[in-house]
Amino acid sequence: MRIIKISHDECRELLNRVPVGRLACSLENQPYVIPICFAYEPGYLYVFSTLGQKIKWMRQNPKVCLLVDEIANRCNWTSVIIIGRYCELDEPQYTAEKKHARDRLEQYSDWWYTPVTERLEHTLSIEPVFFRIDITSMSGLRGIPDPEAG
Amino acid sequence: MRIIKISHDECRELLNRVPVGRLACSLENQPYVIPICFAYEPGYLYVFSTLGQKIKWMRQNPKVCLLVDEIANRCNWTSVIIIGRYCELDEPQYTAEKKHARDRLEQYSDWWYTPVTERLEHTLSIEPVFFRIDITSMSGLRGIPDPEAG
Repeated sequence: MRIIKISHDECRELLNRVPVGRLACSLENQPYVIPICFAYEPGYLYVFSTLGQKIKWMRQNPKVCLLVDEIANRCNWTSVIIIGRYCELDEPQYTAEKKHARDRLEQYSDWWYTPVTERLEHTLSIEPVFFRIDITSMSGLRGIPDPEAG
Repeated sequence: MRIIKISHDECRELLNRVPVGRLACSLENQPYVIPICFAYEPGYLYVFSTLGQKIKWMRQNPKVCLLVDEIANRCNWTSVIIIGRYCELDEPQYTAEKKHARDRLEQYSDWWYTPVTERLEHTLSIEPVFFRIDITSMSGLRGIPDPEAG
Protein backbone atom coordinates (compact mmCIF):
# COMPACT_ATOMS: atom_id res chain seq x y z
CA MET A 1 0.00 0.00 0.00
CA ARG A 2 1.06 3.56 -0.68
CA ILE A 3 -0.19 6.46 1.42
CA ILE A 4 -0.56 9.79 -0.33
CA LYS A 5 -1.73 13.22 0.76
CA ILE A 6 -4.93 14.30 -0.92
CA SER A 7 -5.81 17.80 -2.06
CA HIS A 8 -8.26 20.16 -0.33
CA ASP A 9 -10.69 19.54 -3.21
CA GLU A 10 -10.52 15.80 -2.51
CA CYS A 11 -11.05 16.45 1.22
CA ARG A 12 -14.13 18.54 0.40
CA GLU A 13 -15.46 15.81 -1.89
CA LEU A 14 -15.33 13.33 1.00
CA LEU A 15 -16.93 15.80 3.44
CA ASN A 16 -19.77 16.46 1.00
CA ARG A 17 -20.41 12.76 0.45
CA VAL A 18 -19.96 11.18 3.89
CA PRO A 19 -22.35 12.61 6.53
CA VAL A 20 -20.91 10.78 9.56
CA GLY A 21 -17.70 11.61 11.38
CA ARG A 22 -16.03 11.03 14.73
CA LEU A 23 -15.69 14.15 16.83
CA ALA A 24 -13.07 14.43 19.57
CA CYS A 25 -13.20 16.97 22.35
CA SER A 26 -11.11 17.24 25.50
CA LEU A 27 -11.38 18.45 29.08
CA GLU A 28 -8.45 18.64 31.47
CA ASN A 29 -6.52 16.67 28.86
CA GLN A 30 -8.96 13.73 28.94
CA PRO A 31 -10.06 13.23 25.31
CA TYR A 32 -13.53 11.96 24.41
CA VAL A 33 -14.76 10.84 20.97
CA ILE A 34 -18.26 10.19 19.66
CA PRO A 35 -19.92 9.66 16.27
CA ILE A 36 -21.76 12.67 14.85
CA CYS A 37 -23.67 13.61 11.72
CA PHE A 38 -22.70 16.85 10.06
CA ALA A 39 -23.19 19.07 7.01
CA TYR A 40 -20.10 20.63 5.49
CA GLU A 41 -19.56 23.90 3.73
CA PRO A 42 -16.25 25.66 3.12
CA GLY A 43 -14.87 26.82 6.45
CA TYR A 44 -17.62 25.27 8.56
CA LEU A 45 -19.28 22.10 9.74
CA TYR A 46 -22.84 22.18 11.05
CA VAL A 47 -23.90 19.67 13.67
CA PHE A 48 -27.11 18.94 15.52
CA SER A 49 -26.92 17.06 18.77
CA THR A 50 -28.49 16.50 22.13
CA LEU A 51 -27.09 17.99 25.31
CA GLY A 52 -24.61 15.62 26.84
CA GLN A 53 -21.04 15.25 28.01
CA LYS A 54 -19.54 16.37 24.71
CA ILE A 55 -21.55 19.64 24.69
CA LYS A 56 -20.65 20.38 28.31
CA TRP A 57 -16.99 19.74 27.55
CA MET A 58 -16.92 21.81 24.33
CA ARG A 59 -18.53 24.73 26.14
CA GLN A 60 -15.52 24.69 28.47
CA ASN A 61 -12.88 23.88 25.85
CA PRO A 62 -13.88 24.72 22.24
CA LYS A 63 -10.86 22.99 20.66
CA VAL A 64 -12.09 19.98 18.63
CA CYS A 65 -10.90 17.49 16.03
CA LEU A 66 -13.13 15.72 13.51
CA LEU A 67 -12.17 12.57 11.65
CA VAL A 68 -14.10 11.61 8.54
CA ASP A 69 -13.01 8.41 6.89
CA GLU A 70 -14.07 5.84 4.35
CA ILE A 71 -12.44 2.43 4.74
CA ALA A 72 -13.05 -0.10 1.97
CA ASN A 73 -10.26 -2.38 3.16
CA ARG A 74 -6.80 -2.05 4.64
CA CYS A 75 -5.23 -1.01 1.34
CA ASN A 76 -8.01 1.24 0.12
CA TRP A 77 -9.15 4.06 2.36
CA THR A 78 -9.40 7.83 2.67
CA SER A 79 -9.32 9.91 5.84
CA VAL A 80 -9.73 13.62 6.48
CA ILE A 81 -8.75 15.25 9.77
CA ILE A 82 -10.13 18.65 10.69
CA ILE A 83 -8.92 20.84 13.53
CA GLY A 84 -11.45 23.45 14.56
CA ARG A 85 -13.33 25.34 17.22
CA TYR A 86 -16.78 24.74 18.68
CA CYS A 87 -19.32 27.54 18.26
CA GLU A 88 -22.78 27.02 19.75
CA LEU A 89 -25.66 28.41 17.70
CA ASP A 90 -28.31 28.64 20.38
CA GLU A 91 -27.55 32.25 21.36
CA PRO A 92 -29.91 34.93 19.94
CA GLN A 93 -27.23 36.47 17.70
CA TYR A 94 -27.02 33.16 15.84
CA THR A 95 -30.73 32.86 14.96
CA ALA A 96 -30.10 33.27 11.20
CA GLU A 97 -27.02 31.02 11.36
CA LYS A 98 -29.04 28.37 13.18
CA LYS A 99 -31.71 28.41 10.47
CA HIS A 100 -28.93 28.10 7.89
CA ALA A 101 -27.48 25.15 9.82
CA ARG A 102 -30.87 23.47 9.92
CA ASP A 103 -31.36 23.97 6.17
CA ARG A 104 -27.91 22.57 5.41
CA LEU A 105 -28.41 19.57 7.66
CA GLU A 106 -31.78 18.81 6.10
CA GLN A 107 -30.23 19.08 2.66
CA TYR A 108 -27.26 16.83 3.30
CA SER A 109 -28.56 14.12 5.55
CA ASP A 110 -31.61 12.62 7.14
CA TRP A 111 -29.48 11.82 10.16
CA TRP A 112 -29.78 15.31 11.60
CA TYR A 113 -33.20 14.84 13.16
CA THR A 114 -32.37 11.55 14.84
CA PRO A 115 -31.54 13.09 18.22
CA VAL A 116 -34.98 14.74 18.42
CA THR A 117 -36.80 11.48 18.03
CA GLU A 118 -34.43 9.36 20.05
CA ARG A 119 -35.21 8.31 23.56
CA LEU A 120 -32.48 7.23 25.93
CA GLU A 121 -34.10 4.96 28.46
CA HIS A 122 -34.03 6.31 32.00
CA THR A 123 -33.36 9.81 30.67
CA LEU A 124 -36.21 12.19 31.27
CA SER A 125 -35.43 15.10 28.98
CA ILE A 126 -33.58 15.66 25.72
CA GLU A 127 -32.33 19.15 24.96
CA PRO A 128 -31.36 19.71 21.33
CA VAL A 129 -28.28 21.80 20.55
CA PHE A 130 -27.12 23.21 17.22
CA PHE A 131 -23.45 23.95 16.85
CA ARG A 132 -20.94 24.93 14.22
CA ILE A 133 -17.31 23.91 13.95
CA ASP A 134 -15.14 26.69 12.57
CA ILE A 135 -12.44 24.90 10.59
CA THR A 136 -8.86 25.93 11.43
CA SER A 137 -7.07 23.33 9.32
CA MET A 138 -7.93 20.34 7.17
CA SER A 139 -5.74 17.56 5.75
CA GLY A 140 -6.36 14.21 4.15
CA LEU A 141 -4.61 10.95 3.38
CA ARG A 142 -5.44 8.10 1.04
CA GLY A 143 -4.20 4.53 1.15
CA ILE A 144 -4.06 2.92 -2.28
CA PRO A 145 -2.93 -0.54 -3.37
CA ASP A 146 0.70 -0.58 -4.41
CA PRO A 147 0.90 -1.53 -8.11
CA GLU A 148 4.26 -3.17 -7.42
CA ALA A 149 2.69 -5.53 -4.86
CA GLY A 150 1.71 -8.98 -5.94
CA MET B 1 -35.45 4.87 17.41
CA ARG B 2 -34.76 3.83 20.96
CA ILE B 3 -31.28 4.09 22.49
CA ILE B 4 -30.39 1.52 25.12
CA LYS B 5 -27.31 0.87 27.17
CA ILE B 6 -25.65 -2.43 26.34
CA SER B 7 -23.95 -4.79 28.77
CA HIS B 8 -20.20 -5.28 29.19
CA ASP B 9 -20.59 -8.66 27.48
CA GLU B 10 -22.16 -6.95 24.48
CA CYS B 11 -19.36 -4.36 24.46
CA ARG B 12 -16.79 -7.16 24.47
CA GLU B 13 -18.59 -8.91 21.61
CA LEU B 14 -18.26 -5.77 19.46
CA LEU B 15 -14.58 -5.29 20.42
CA ASN B 16 -13.80 -8.90 19.50
CA ARG B 17 -15.54 -8.61 16.14
CA VAL B 18 -14.67 -5.11 14.87
CA PRO B 19 -10.89 -4.56 14.52
CA VAL B 20 -10.99 -0.84 13.65
CA GLY B 21 -11.64 2.02 16.04
CA ARG B 22 -11.08 5.76 16.32
CA LEU B 23 -8.55 6.75 18.93
CA ALA B 24 -8.55 10.23 20.48
CA CYS B 25 -5.58 11.72 22.31
CA SER B 26 -5.01 15.24 23.51
CA LEU B 27 -2.18 17.69 24.12
CA GLU B 28 -2.63 21.06 25.81
CA ASN B 29 -6.36 20.44 25.47
CA GLN B 30 -6.21 20.14 21.67
CA PRO B 31 -7.82 16.76 20.85
CA TYR B 32 -6.71 14.66 17.88
CA VAL B 33 -8.43 11.56 16.47
CA ILE B 34 -7.23 8.91 14.03
CA PRO B 35 -8.36 5.46 12.86
CA ILE B 36 -6.46 2.53 14.37
CA CYS B 37 -6.55 -1.26 14.24
CA PHE B 38 -6.51 -3.06 17.57
CA ALA B 39 -6.82 -6.43 19.29
CA TYR B 40 -8.93 -6.57 22.44
CA GLU B 41 -8.67 -8.67 25.54
CA PRO B 42 -10.30 -8.03 28.92
CA GLY B 43 -8.70 -4.94 30.43
CA TYR B 44 -6.48 -4.15 27.45
CA LEU B 45 -6.31 -3.10 23.83
CA TYR B 46 -3.20 -3.84 21.78
CA VAL B 47 -2.28 -1.51 18.95
CA PHE B 48 0.50 -1.41 16.40
CA SER B 49 1.30 1.88 14.78
CA THR B 50 3.96 4.01 13.20
CA LEU B 51 5.62 6.89 15.01
CA GLY B 52 3.69 10.06 14.38
CA GLN B 53 1.87 12.91 16.05
CA LYS B 54 -0.42 10.61 18.06
CA ILE B 55 2.50 8.68 19.58
CA LYS B 56 4.36 11.87 20.46
CA TRP B 57 1.23 13.26 22.08
CA MET B 58 0.37 10.09 24.02
CA ARG B 59 3.92 9.92 25.37
CA GLN B 60 3.29 13.35 26.91
CA ASN B 61 -0.34 12.74 27.92
CA PRO B 62 -1.36 9.06 28.26
CA LYS B 63 -5.09 9.76 28.67
CA VAL B 64 -6.94 8.37 25.64
CA CYS B 65 -10.44 7.55 24.44
CA LEU B 66 -11.32 4.88 21.89
CA LEU B 67 -14.60 4.73 19.97
CA VAL B 68 -15.60 1.49 18.28
CA ASP B 69 -18.84 1.60 16.39
CA GLU B 70 -20.90 -0.27 13.85
CA ILE B 71 -23.43 1.83 11.97
CA ALA B 72 -25.88 -0.01 9.73
CA ASN B 73 -28.16 2.99 9.41
CA ARG B 74 -29.40 5.85 11.56
CA CYS B 75 -31.79 3.61 13.49
CA ASN B 76 -29.56 0.59 13.84
CA TRP B 77 -26.12 1.07 15.34
CA THR B 78 -23.90 0.12 18.25
CA SER B 79 -21.10 2.16 19.80
CA VAL B 80 -18.61 1.41 22.57
CA ILE B 81 -16.56 4.14 24.24
CA ILE B 82 -13.43 3.22 26.18
CA ILE B 83 -11.50 5.54 28.47
CA GLY B 84 -7.96 4.36 29.10
CA ARG B 85 -4.27 5.06 29.41
CA TYR B 86 -1.49 4.71 26.86
CA CYS B 87 1.31 2.29 27.72
CA GLU B 88 4.15 1.92 25.23
CA LEU B 89 5.56 -1.59 24.84
CA ASP B 90 8.93 -0.78 23.33
CA GLU B 91 10.79 -0.63 26.67
CA PRO B 92 12.86 -3.74 27.60
CA GLN B 93 10.59 -4.67 30.53
CA TYR B 94 7.74 -5.15 28.04
CA THR B 95 9.49 -7.65 25.73
CA ALA B 96 7.13 -10.51 26.65
CA GLU B 97 4.12 -8.22 26.58
CA LYS B 98 5.15 -6.95 23.15
CA LYS B 99 5.32 -10.52 21.82
CA HIS B 100 1.89 -11.15 23.32
CA ALA B 101 0.58 -8.00 21.63
CA ARG B 102 1.99 -9.12 18.30
CA ASP B 103 0.41 -12.58 18.67
CA ARG B 104 -2.96 -11.08 19.55
CA LEU B 105 -2.84 -8.63 16.67
CA GLU B 106 -1.93 -11.37 14.22
CA GLN B 107 -4.78 -13.49 15.57
CA TYR B 108 -7.47 -10.84 15.40
CA SER B 109 -6.71 -8.89 12.30
CA ASP B 110 -4.59 -8.67 9.20
CA TRP B 111 -4.63 -4.91 9.56
CA TRP B 112 -1.89 -4.85 12.14
CA TYR B 113 1.01 -5.13 9.74
CA THR B 114 -0.20 -2.43 7.41
CA PRO B 115 1.98 0.31 8.91
CA VAL B 116 5.13 -1.73 8.31
CA THR B 117 4.49 -2.05 4.63
CA GLU B 118 3.07 1.39 4.10
CA ARG B 119 5.07 4.17 2.57
CA LEU B 120 4.09 7.77 3.06
CA GLU B 121 5.45 9.69 0.12
CA HIS B 122 8.07 12.26 1.07
CA THR B 123 8.60 10.50 4.40
CA LEU B 124 12.01 8.95 4.71
CA SER B 125 11.66 6.63 7.69
CA ILE B 126 8.91 4.67 9.38
CA GLU B 127 9.40 3.68 13.01
CA PRO B 128 6.99 1.00 14.24
CA VAL B 129 5.57 1.30 17.76
CA PHE B 130 3.61 -1.25 19.78
CA PHE B 131 1.39 0.08 22.51
CA ARG B 132 -1.26 -1.09 24.92
CA ILE B 133 -4.28 0.81 26.16
CA ASP B 134 -5.09 -0.03 29.77
CA ILE B 135 -8.88 0.20 29.97
CA THR B 136 -10.19 2.38 32.80
CA SER B 137 -13.87 2.30 31.83
CA MET B 138 -16.05 0.97 29.04
CA SER B 139 -19.66 1.70 28.11
CA GLY B 140 -21.85 1.02 25.12
CA LEU B 141 -25.06 2.21 23.51
CA ARG B 142 -27.27 0.70 20.84
CA GLY B 143 -29.81 2.41 18.63
CA ILE B 144 -32.67 0.13 17.62
CA PRO B 145 -35.74 0.77 15.49
CA ASP B 146 -38.75 1.74 17.57
CA PRO B 147 -41.46 -0.91 17.14
CA GLU B 148 -44.07 1.81 17.64
CA ALA B 149 -42.77 3.81 14.67
CA GLY B 150 -44.45 3.40 11.32
